[in-house]
Amino acid sequence: MNVALLSIGDELLIGKTVNTNASWLGEHLSAIGFDISCVETISDNRESIVNSLARLSAESNVVIVTGGLGPTNDDITKLVLCEFFQTELVFNQQAYEGMVRYATARNQEVNAQNLTQAQFPKSARLVPNPCGTASGMWFEKDQHVVVSLPGVPSEMKRMMEESVIPWLRSMFDLPAIVHRHINVADIAESKLAEIIADWESALPSQVHLAYLPAAGVVKLRLSCKAENEQLARAIIAEQEEKLMPQISQYVWGYDDETIEEVVGNLLLSQGATVATAESCTGGTISAKLTRISGSSAYYWGSVISYDNSVKINELQVAPSDIENYGVVSEAVVRTMASQVRKKIGTTYGVATSGIAGPTGGSAEKPVGTVWIAVASDKNVVAKRFQFGTEREHNVEKAAFSALRMLQLLILQEQNN
Amino acid sequence: MNVALLSIGDELLIGKTVNTNASWLGEHLSAIGFDISCVETISDNRESIVNSLARLSAESNVVIVTGGLGPTNDDITKLVLCEFFQTELVFNQQAYEGMVRYATARNQEVNAQNLTQAQFPKSARLVPNPCGTASGMWFEKDQHVVVSLPGVPSEMKRMMEESVIPWLRSMFDLPAIVHRHINVADIAESKLAEIIADWESALPSQVHLAYLPAAGVVKLRLSCKAENEQLARAIIAEQEEKLMPQISQYVWGYDDETIEEVVGNLLLSQGATVATAESCTGGTISAKLTRISGSSAYYWGSVISYDNSVKINELQVAPSDIENYGVVSEAVVRTMASQVRKKIGTTYGVATSGIAGPTGGSAEKPVGTVWIAVASDKNVVAKRFQFGTEREHNVEKAAFSALRMLQLLILQEQNN
Repeated sequence: MNVALLSIGDELLIGKTVNTNASWLGEHLSAIGFDISCVETISDNRESIVNSLARLSAESNVVIVTGGLGPTNDDITKLVLCEFFQTELVFNQQAYEGMVRYATARNQEVNAQNLTQAQFPKSARLVPNPCGTASGMWFEKDQHVVVSLPGVPSEMKRMMEESVIPWLRSMFDLPAIVHRHINVADIAESKLAEIIADWESALPSQVHLAYLPAAGVVKLRLSCKAENEQLARAIIAEQEEKLMPQISQYVWGYDDETIEEVVGNLLLSQGATVATAESCTGGTISAKLTRISGSSAYYWGSVISYDNSVKINELQVAPSDIENYGVVSEAVVRTMASQVRKKIGTTYGVATSGIAGPTGGSAEKPVGTVWIAVASDKNVVAKRFQFGTEREHNVEKAAFSALRMLQLLILQEQNN
Repeated sequence: MNVALLSIGDELLIGKTVNTNASWLGEHLSAIGFDISCVETISDNRESIVNSLARLSAESNVVIVTGGLGPTNDDITKLVLCEFFQTELVFNQQAYEGMVRYATARNQEVNAQNLTQAQFPKSARLVPNPCGTASGMWFEKDQHVVVSLPGVPSEMKRMMEESVIPWLRSMFDLPAIVHRHINVADIAESKLAEIIADWESALPSQVHLAYLPAAGVVKLRLSCKAENEQLARAIIAEQEEKLMPQISQYVWGYDDETIEEVVGNLLLSQGATVATAESCTGGTISAKLTRISGSSAYYWGSVISYDNSVKINELQVAPSDIENYGVVSEAVVRTMASQVRKKIGTTYGVATSGIAGPTGGSAEKPVGTVWIAVASDKNVVAKRFQFGTEREHNVEKAAFSALRMLQLLILQEQNN
């Protein structure tokens, strides 16, 4: 069974609004076993809508249309749908009552524009909208369905969850589809592909593998379609078990986990705490950790030591170390990591010092050179990284790598 | 002139990745005068790619394809493009050298999979990729263009800015469109609309006004389409001059400026420096300031004092103040802002303390309550804000408001 998504609206085309509706729909419809055949975004005009509707409804079992249903004049979707399904607009009591209820609850008057919203296609089933004035429409013809919903994300989501998804489930016999993401790092995508080539070529046909690269990270996505969810989960688990011994040293998390969540949970489970001494990451590690609700249990504070004077005065970095080895050096980050944990009184300390770019590089230490250290009361581990030329990326990659090094140190000390 | 956008990738269809490439491309291509006819997202398979390419390249002057160019097996775009343009893959010295340069700079080996990336369509023009291994392809036939770029946003953007947009500009005769953004804060959108209603209704027909609200901020966008850029700029400048006296007290910046850039430039022009003492923003202000290249000239460091012990030990906050007024209070942020500038030795200090949520609120201080202070050697200004219930939003709004307060303090002291 496949579904096509059709988003209507100029604000999407000119990039003033990011199409998060399409990603939400894609995620939720593939989760119940639909294949998403395509996503199309078009302008709010008759010809584009008719052309796309004709093509998509011929190719797909279901078409979900979003947008073009508001109370203003530039919304013509309802008229075009009537034309397409050869039906007419009639006054609809249910649409009218829903609208009045909505307006009354907000002390708004029902005006002439709202009244045109009570006009509804005769042959369509009404999709109730509990948080807005525009009802949705469900058209059915020869086991094909076209659903039209408002473009406001909160309204669309409620209507999908409460009506459309249950109706689709009862109408279509859907397979179960399960996705599993294995998040790896410290290895290039091409090298990873080499290592797992044999395993990949032996995958059963119903399991599909995809590489999803992001900054400094690769996500391996295993997808399995089967008669039921339990079976799909079992098939994936079996393949994952075969895969893990080959890549476990590179795996830092699963599914939607971020590295700061993984590290946060690890610290929490140990009753441990962390502080950071950040130079080139400038507070990014701290900001990431504190975006998690409840992080005050394991994150206590930081010294962002951008200027050398702060490294010297607050973190006891020796001026002679800066002179002899440079501020981007193993000696300096080791001191920073050790001193910040002592100063703040935490279990672990994390430190970064590097050249984020685009200027400030040298032949010996080009832009993208970053030294990172993690420290506990027993160990201090430092490592040099060579990232790229883009400032923002270098900061993101350094923040990820610092948290990854902390994860490895905690796991290592846990096992000893 | 119109352009169609074609995004390739299952991760987009199933909603694991939001299609921000399409919105970026839509924004930047409409800014240089293209109409965006449609955006399509399809699966990484031959038939879908061929069908969409055939249809879109017939309908539009330009098709920009993103995605499907990585080194692994699930990327077949290059082969399909060769088939579509009836050409063949040949070894390309420029593609090979770019890739080797990229890998060498990162101490990565060039392996067999990378080598297939040096195979390039004979009839295509190479679009250099300065920050990745996959080159882009520019195909041209009968005044129609198809461009294929990698899906990694940072690579795609660089390649658009450095090659594709200049090439498109020189090939097509585009009308001049000029946009001007005036960035305001400290006023609700509806109130702003009221204030400027008379000015808006008197705008000439070729000038269009749009309200673009974001977290705590409204951007007013003035757009003008004219015969040439100079004329469009002059028309907009005239309208802006009429508008400014009515709203200048709310204006904090223009166009793509961020508040951290505005504040950074202001500090730089004064030879002044800043340090932050952040609690609820957890390093976000510091991270924003240091994302700007050259920020080390005015940003020296921070004490991220998430735990009360750090506020007391490092920032001399009196335990009695915490006891009497609470940690989210005027007394506490005043001390934090004053102490951090003394400790780090900077001209200005900025401090935040609040309840980011979703838990931790009370009747008196609900979630979203944030105290912010800015301090110099002469003044300390503190203000209480009431933001919303969402953690991420509250942190963003607090960071913006802190930098906006710093801007106002610097301007005020400059004028005295």
